[in-house]
Amino acid sequence: MQVAGHPYRTIWLKPDDDRIVQIIDQRALPYRFVIEDIATVEQMAVAIRHMHVRGAGLIGAAAGYGMYLATLTDVEPAAAAELLRATRPTAVNLAWATQRQLLQITAGATLAEKRALALKTAEAIANEDAEHCRQIGLHGVKLIEAIAARREGRPVNVLTHCNAGWLAFVDHGSATAPIYAAHDRGIPVHVWVDETRPRNQGAKLTAWELGEHGVPHTVIADNTGGHLMQRGEVDLVLVGTDRTTYTGDVANKIGTYLKALAAKDNGVPFYVALPSSSFDWKIRDGVAEIPIEERDAAEVQQVDGWGEDQVREVRVANPKSPAANYAFDVTPRRLITALITERGICQANEQSILALFPEHAS
Amino acid sequence: MQVAGHPYRTIWLKPDDDRIVQIIDQRALPYRFVIEDIATVEQMAVAIRHMHVRGAGLIGAAAGYGMYLATLTDVEPAAAAELLRATRPTAVNLAWATQRQLLQITAGATLAEKRALALKTAEAIANEDAEHCRQIGLHGVKLIEAIAARREGRPVNVLTHCNAGWLAFVDHGSATAPIYAAHDRGIPVHVWVDETRPRNQGAKLTAWELGEHGVPHTVIADNTGGHLMQRGEVDLVLVGTDRTTYTGDVANKIGTYLKALAAKDNGVPFYVALPSSSFDWKIRDGVAEIPIEERDAAEVQQVDGWGEDQVREVRVANPKSPAANYAFDVTPRRLITALITERGICQANEQSILALFPEHAS
Repeated sequence: MQVAGHPYRTIWLKPDDDRIVQIIDQRALPYRFVIEDIATVEQMAVAIRHMHVRGAGLIGAAAGYGMYLATLTDVEPAAAAELLRATRPTAVNLAWATQRQLLQITAGATLAEKRALALKTAEAIANEDAEHCRQIGLHGVKLIEAIAARREGRPVNVLTHCNAGWLAFVDHGSATAPIYAAHDRGIPVHVWVDETRPRNQGAKLTAWELGEHGVPHTVIADNTGGHLMQRGEVDLVLVGTDRTTYTGDVANKIGTYLKALAAKDNGVPFYVALPSSSFDWKIRDGVAEIPIEERDAAEVQQVDGWGEDQVREVRVANPKSPAANYAFDVTPRRLITALITERGICQANEQSILALFPEHAS
Repeated sequence: MQVAGHPYRTIWLKPDDDRIVQIIDQRALPYRFVIEDIATVEQMAVAIRHMHVRGAGLIGAAAGYGMYLATLTDVEPAAAAELLRATRPTAVNLAWATQRQLLQITAGATLAEKRALALKTAEAIANEDAEHCRQIGLHGVKLIEAIAARREGRPVNVLTHCNAGWLAFVDHGSATAPIYAAHDRGIPVHVWVDETRPRNQGAKLTAWELGEHGVPHTVIADNTGGHLMQRGEVDLVLVGTDRTTYTGDVANKIGTYLKALAAKDNGVPFYVALPSSSFDWKIRDGVAEIPIEERDAAEVQQVDGWGEDQVREVRVANPKSPAANYAFDVTPRRLITALITERGICQANEQSILALFPEHAS
């Protein structure tokens, strides 16, 4: 996607030095655009652990490139995989990407062969992630086009929550892919961006990437979506997911469930966009069974923002009051209009999901 | 209610000098507890306009005391009323309190009589506000007691949104009155406090007043309530209102509607506490007819908090992104379990409301 008029991915091999991987250091966004050189697997582990890069798709790709960097400095592949996996213990993409690399690297007979295989695999992981998101965009844009056809030139209003944008993947994003596809085709689209407390990924990241790509958007407090839907100001809701059961229950950033309730109450379609790697093929009842991460209360009590030319942290809650910080909630399938995947659009139920992914119907 | 172990109201006549009115300057909360002396109607107008005091009940009382101060400095009563009314144009309590004072003051034959009548009326307005809230507490506490009886000693979990606490009235508050009544009777109660973006009245004011009075509570992001209700962690929702139609539709701080939807979806009772002065006896359809104030986008884009020993403002959204800031939403009557008023509890519908307030049934 575009940044200041130039196309970017979130991770790439340095053009003039294939021993260096470059990333956008997302900690500095939206205030500064910082590109970071990563030369070793240890540096990549730090970048993942400290969230220079974040988002399921992107950290899978980062792990793939990290394994390649390990081959350049003769770090034992198994040790590199272990190092990368330990950075974010619950991220399934880390385990998957390092395992895929291990199988490839060990197939190489010489060190040169191992390096070549590792690079090829890292590029393949990144390209596949970008391509899956592009496909989600091609399927999802039809939904936006259909609404645009009824609106006679007035913009289609999309509401999104958190950052399921290209910054969370290698390119395009999941929830944002149909939006970028629509915008690039000249369909007028406007996005209501939930700020997404407590970490403000919407106000910081989604607003930044939409703005850089030129997509009209407006930041709102998370409290606002229901009122906008009551007033007919939202044509569709489009969100991503951290994990979706094969039965159609959607775990996503805390607050998603509230927006789904408001969409249902106002007849607004509610779509979830996801690459199939985000399906959980084992869990049947998402509300009862998906574990919900509790994070540090300080994320609720304090806010970091830009003040007097630097990032500052300020306390926004009563200093003596405790806080609780649940990171995700689960939206039950009955509230979801459809899922948008790289293979197409399906209903949020077991039958429809498995019809699209029959290889998991065992 | 209690502050650091001492009982306070939000406004009172200075004990040793009845020519001075004292208020809690709420702009400094929760970081500092500041009492401000108000000696003239002009100072009271500034205090109302710049939100040293806020909340419907409290600004009505402040206007009452402001009219009394006007009589001390020989400001023309009609001019004083005009000055006070203009501070917050949409607040009906200002118009009502100044009109009540004008009728009293003009009935006085001498200046001394006018002053005595104005003081008596100011005290009456404040006392009535506190008494109405106390009555709301006495009616509402029965709901909490009934739940406590089923919970065998485990705390009753209440969720509230924004500040409908004693800081918004003269004492007790509306939504908080049943909570304080329960706590003071020894019923174990715990409050989930929505932080209430964008202005954080929950995290700042509600958390502060509950904490000072000793009521156990936890601050949460506004996104969290739905998840807590899914998990059975909320026994009832209790909120205030800025305006409620005689048909039962409730305008309150933006985001209230989302919590009402989640309560309905999870079988959690949703109560609205209000003194009858918050009823609008003219509007029939709240969602369609209640105008919703749009405030400055900067309240969404920036946050003020405490950092390095002072209140600082930091930018929390992408600097180039516009924001929208709707202050209220309307919760339709079908989502509301009951209303708690100073006269008792009624259903959120015309018949039940008018049965409790028959003088408005014309």
